[in-house]
Amino acid sequence: MRVYRGTFVNPLNDRRYIDFLRDHIVGVQDGTIAFVEPASRLGEMATIHGFNPESDVSVFMGNQFFIPGMIDTHIHAPQYAFTGTATSCPLMEWLEKFTYPTESRFSDLGFAEQVYSKLISRLLKNGCTTGLYYATIHNESSLALARCALRAGQRAFIGKVAMDRNAPDHYRQATATAIEETERFILDARQLNSGLTHPLVEPVVTPRFIPTCTSDLMSGLAALAAKHHCLIQTHAVESIDEVAFVKSLHDAEARHEDDACHCSGGETGCLCERDIMILDKLGLLKPGTVLAHAVHLKEEEAALIKERGAAISHCPLSNYFFSQGVLPLRRCLDWGVTVGLGTDVAGGYAPSLLTAIRETVVSSRTLENRELQEGRVGGPRLRSELRVTWREALWLATMGGAQSLMLANRLGSFAPGKLFDAVLVDPQAPGSPFDVFIDAP
Amino acid sequence: MRVYRGTFVNPLNDRRYIDFLRDHIVGVQDGTIAFVEPASRLGEMATIHGFNPESDVSVFMGNQFFIPGMIDTHIHAPQYAFTGTATSCPLMEWLEKFTYPTESRFSDLGFAEQVYSKLISRLLKNGCTTGLYYATIHNESSLALARCALRAGQRAFIGKVAMDRNAPDHYRQATATAIEETERFILDARQLNSGLTHPLVEPVVTPRFIPTCTSDLMSGLAALAAKHHCLIQTHAVESIDEVAFVKSLHDAEARHEDDACHCSGGETGCLCERDIMILDKLGLLKPGTVLAHAVHLKEEEAALIKERGAAISHCPLSNYFFSQGVLPLRRCLDWGVTVGLGTDVAGGYAPSLLTAIRETVVSSRTLENRELQEGRVGGPRLRSELRVTWREALWLATMGGAQSLMLANRLGSFAPGKLFDAVLVDPQAPGSPFDVFIDAP
Repeated sequence: MRVYRGTFVNPLNDRRYIDFLRDHIVGVQDGTIAFVEPASRLGEMATIHGFNPESDVSVFMGNQFFIPGMIDTHIHAPQYAFTGTATSCPLMEWLEKFTYPTESRFSDLGFAEQVYSKLISRLLKNGCTTGLYYATIHNESSLALARCALRAGQRAFIGKVAMDRNAPDHYRQATATAIEETERFILDARQLNSGLTHPLVEPVVTPRFIPTCTSDLMSGLAALAAKHHCLIQTHAVESIDEVAFVKSLHDAEARHEDDACHCSGGETGCLCERDIMILDKLGLLKPGTVLAHAVHLKEEEAALIKERGAAISHCPLSNYFFSQGVLPLRRCLDWGVTVGLGTDVAGGYAPSLLTAIRETVVSSRTLENRELQEGRVGGPRLRSELRVTWREALWLATMGGAQSLMLANRLGSFAPGKLFDAVLVDPQAPGSPFDVFIDAP
Repeated sequence: MRVYRGTFVNPLNDRRYIDFLRDHIVGVQDGTIAFVEPASRLGEMATIHGFNPESDVSVFMGNQFFIPGMIDTHIHAPQYAFTGTATSCPLMEWLEKFTYPTESRFSDLGFAEQVYSKLISRLLKNGCTTGLYYATIHNESSLALARCALRAGQRAFIGKVAMDRNAPDHYRQATATAIEETERFILDARQLNSGLTHPLVEPVVTPRFIPTCTSDLMSGLAALAAKHHCLIQTHAVESIDEVAFVKSLHDAEARHEDDACHCSGGETGCLCERDIMILDKLGLLKPGTVLAHAVHLKEEEAALIKERGAAISHCPLSNYFFSQGVLPLRRCLDWGVTVGLGTDVAGGYAPSLLTAIRETVVSSRTLENRELQEGRVGGPRLRSELRVTWREALWLATMGGAQSLMLANRLGSFAPGKLFDAVLVDPQAPGSPFDVFIDAP
């Protein structure tokens, strides 16, 4: 047993609370946490668990502290190759001109290895120990991403991307091929864990988003997810142009099938022609589904996501560039929807959840300030109910991510039975971006 | 003469343009740029300027490039001691509970030295070679800030802060004292440059903002600025609570003097009771005046700022926390107002203009997205006219800052006659936050 002594910043099950466990000890056996106790109980724990309080304890004092390894719930791994490029484009144009051409190059395994190994190393440096990744449509390079993660010791949930329409000819697959290759990827990826006590790689069923996936493809993928007990990831109601594109597809199909919409959208308009209802109808909305963005969500759609047990990946940075809006995060949380944070590399230019945490706070203030200016909330002290605090944002980057991936029993906080998946923060490390003051206020 | 060969990212006089001078040479004599030429003219330049093309040339190739040293036009140096603390408070409460108590501690020179030396080192690491600082009301520690800058080789414009009302008793001065001490600071600070070819330290007349400065104090300071040819810095129309506070002060004074407002505010309401007009009336709005924030600016006020030749320091990050809004930067630029960027440490938690550049882009998208959502701008391609590009933001952090400080003839770009004040960016330096890809798109 290895015992770690120091300060542990520990998210609780309720997202409004984080514990600051000063001078505590955490005992770890075979990667799993055996106990979390005040250091005053060191002798007692040594007796119970049979460790040597001298040689088996690693001490991290001063300004160092531990946080749970952060969980990035939305990363396009191949897009790291052009991070920050052309974020001035509208989404659909950006995909066509920059994303698809770049992603299609990942049939080249050498290029894939170069980008993926640098990305994973960078994410680990920034404190992300678990990633939910989109790879590309290529099975071999998607497996290369898995191997990079294994080599680096990062937990990686990886989707071979499925697309069968509205993408360039050289970067999409026939419906049946996309389904077959997805199943082959699921089986191959799971093979990679052989010999590991705690599996690190997990395949994820990944219809990119409705514009590039026919209903047949999505139904087939839903069946695969059920058969192999896989997580599902896709994008939903991300931007005004994407929502309009989905509506136009739906309209065309409805006309083609002579099957007009008969939903009772009422005041909110037709929901059947929008992402959430379509995904639900096709069997893709369930526990373990992670919906990226969801910026233009309606309350009824949030209720459906909650009811189905799916989760939203909030990617605050890319919202500014592509979404023409910001996810109403506070409202989603109040509605009880499960939310994790995502960097959305490369739409989000920063391969760091620390940036995502900061932008979560900032973007919530964007919404609050707007309402304040318009006199809809606030009062003499100019407070409102829309802001999200850094504590909540850190909670979302850890426990929120764990809940999104259905792993709250294994990740996201320090508790007996969970994996010891931790980041040591040292503000005084060489080259630290922080300064520490003696006797500061 | 020392000659630098490499790539120079060079802002032009027009803020819409930045030149990318690949494989160029810049000749520097006694700190001043003698020539900027393509490297193909190396031999010719060596003959003209009499340098040795072998031994006198430093070559920076590969992915390295030079940018002009960045200019931070709004930093509260003492506040670095509590950076990022309590940004959830409204502005006036944050000042009272956190800022004034911290700043008042800077009567302790040891504490001041600790904080100031770390701040300046951090700003230099982040590429800021010129800072426009608020110190505290204390002359001695304001001079200590100047000495820290001199030691580190940073160009520093420093204000001993003047306050004579609405601040704690132990952290304000009588009106006459504040004026006398400001004049003493001006004289003492200028002494520090003795022996330097290019002065590094310059005193700045600094009425903190109208809530803490009587009209007598501000008039007195305006006279000092005129007498000693000093820059002026203050805050203006930063937040809803600050604007309301100024109005209440104005109302009280107007009643007291039995001198009601007779301005012709018309549709925009009374401008006399707002910061810009008050500063102008007291002689503080002129070339070399830098107004921090100006978030809640009206168009008539922007026109007055432009007419007087004053500048705005845009601090995008702190806008989110304290301003209940974001400066309409695009409109200010279109109106022809001079603008520089500021970190606003500590209201802005990041002591880095690189963050300010990113947030300038992001915050402009906040405004654009809001108008897009409300259908006021845009069209089929969802473009609008409110965004600011990274090129413009970099321009603002360099040339915009130089213009704000009336130093566009010495700083802000690479041109003969200007100082060679440069930052070498090396994405492949050890510990770099960037990855570089071979043959990336």
